[in-house]
Amino acid sequence: MDDMPKPSRPRVIVFDVNETLSDMSPMAHRFAEVGAPAHLAATWFAALLRDGIALAAAGAAAPMAEIGATLLRTKLSGRPLDRDVDAAVEHVMSGFTGLAVHRDVVDGVGQLSELGIRLVTLSNGSADIARGLLDRAGLADRFERLLSVEQAGIWKPAARAYAYALAECGVAAPEAMLVAVHPWDVDGAARAGLATGWLNRSGEDYPDYFRRPDMVAASLPELARDLGSLPAVTDR
Amino acid sequence: MDDMPKPSRPRVIVFDVNETLSDMSPMAHRFAEVGAPAHLAATWFAALLRDGIALAAAGAAAPMAEIGATLLRTKLSGRPLDRDVDAAVEHVMSGFTGLAVHRDVVDGVGQLSELGIRLVTLSNGSADIARGLLDRAGLADRFERLLSVEQAGIWKPAARAYAYALAECGVAAPEAMLVAVHPWDVDGAARAGLATGWLNRSGEDYPDYFRRPDMVAASLPELARDLGSLPAVTDR
Repeated sequence: MDDMPKPSRPRVIVFDVNETLSDMSPMAHRFAEVGAPAHLAATWFAALLRDGIALAAAGAAAPMAEIGATLLRTKLSGRPLDRDVDAAVEHVMSGFTGLAVHRDVVDGVGQLSELGIRLVTLSNGSADIARGLLDRAGLADRFERLLSVEQAGIWKPAARAYAYALAECGVAAPEAMLVAVHPWDVDGAARAGLATGWLNRSGEDYPDYFRRPDMVAASLPELARDLGSLPAVTDR
Repeated sequence: MDDMPKPSRPRVIVFDVNETLSDMSPMAHRFAEVGAPAHLAATWFAALLRDGIALAAAGAAAPMAEIGATLLRTKLSGRPLDRDVDAAVEHVMSGFTGLAVHRDVVDGVGQLSELGIRLVTLSNGSADIARGLLDRAGLADRFERLLSVEQAGIWKPAARAYAYALAECGVAAPEAMLVAVHPWDVDGAARAGLATGWLNRSGEDYPDYFRRPDMVAASLPELARDLGSLPAVTDR
């Protein structure tokens, strides 16, 4: 934990989904399985986020699955693959629907839930992907709502995406904490007035050009422990 | 050329710089020179754009050189390199200041200039990088202005970045054409009301989720030829 200007526990934790709850490392295997270099997965996902966020910066939006499949086709075209490009795109994209949660998520979500904090997700992807992920992990009943920016009409980190989640939950921005592995998501939520928790599983440095998180934890159980040491919110 | 709703030549062409005018392929060699995989260059640059554009979506901004160096340090840390991380970051970043223009740029810029079209640049990077690039290519005197979003306070593809360039040039949006290799830049300019030209050197498909360019060319001479076949703008 770096610093802690927020005096009490959040009423609601708004979880990012991709990479924050889901372990996306099998996506690289999917690239290898179709005959493409595994390292393309990282470039592809960064480009997917770049394009979706670019639409947000320009005031527009498109579904993550559409952006993902389109960029995948571009990245795979002209490479020697073990199947045709359509089948390769299908194989990689279907990896999204079979991901598992990171090892620390089951315990961490249980502990956060037992602190009495309401849990929701807010994904730049579809709510169905989040639902499948949490169903497979046996965690769906811990979450009050599974939200997607598709209903907000704009991706995170635009302020309107966070405002949508706050309105759905009926809380003010400072009563909610966005928890994500992506610094750009932490930054956007901070600028939108939410408390923020950066989940730093890999021990990376936090970029100076983004607003700093209110809390930093290496795992969700660590975050639960740190939040548990704060005074609970009293009903107002 | 795909379609052409715009009836006459633009008064001003607003060029993107990185990858549109500059050939960034030597950046991959720089990664290899410090002992890192060359393919990291693509992931790094996509992540750099993702973070800079994320700040734009959240209404903020940071210099490209700062974002680039920060992400480079993260990507290089913990890898076996042939020098320490600071020196490796310095070596890769200094590659930016020595890039050359793509092969088609000298002829294409000359031909566009001879059509009487005013030429400016608008980069998400610094104006100094653009100045060095065009100086080395002997093209600086073909350009009326070298603009950076640093003066706009927000990166492309936010509408305010394009509006800044239009104001500097004293033209209305439909009188200007943004020319870029990046579909997200074409999309943002189109949403800001500019005409757009997509430079597609690699024969990729244009993503359906972005607004389509008004013109498509495989090289700048091809763009100059296509624009030359349109009626010149008469003074109004």
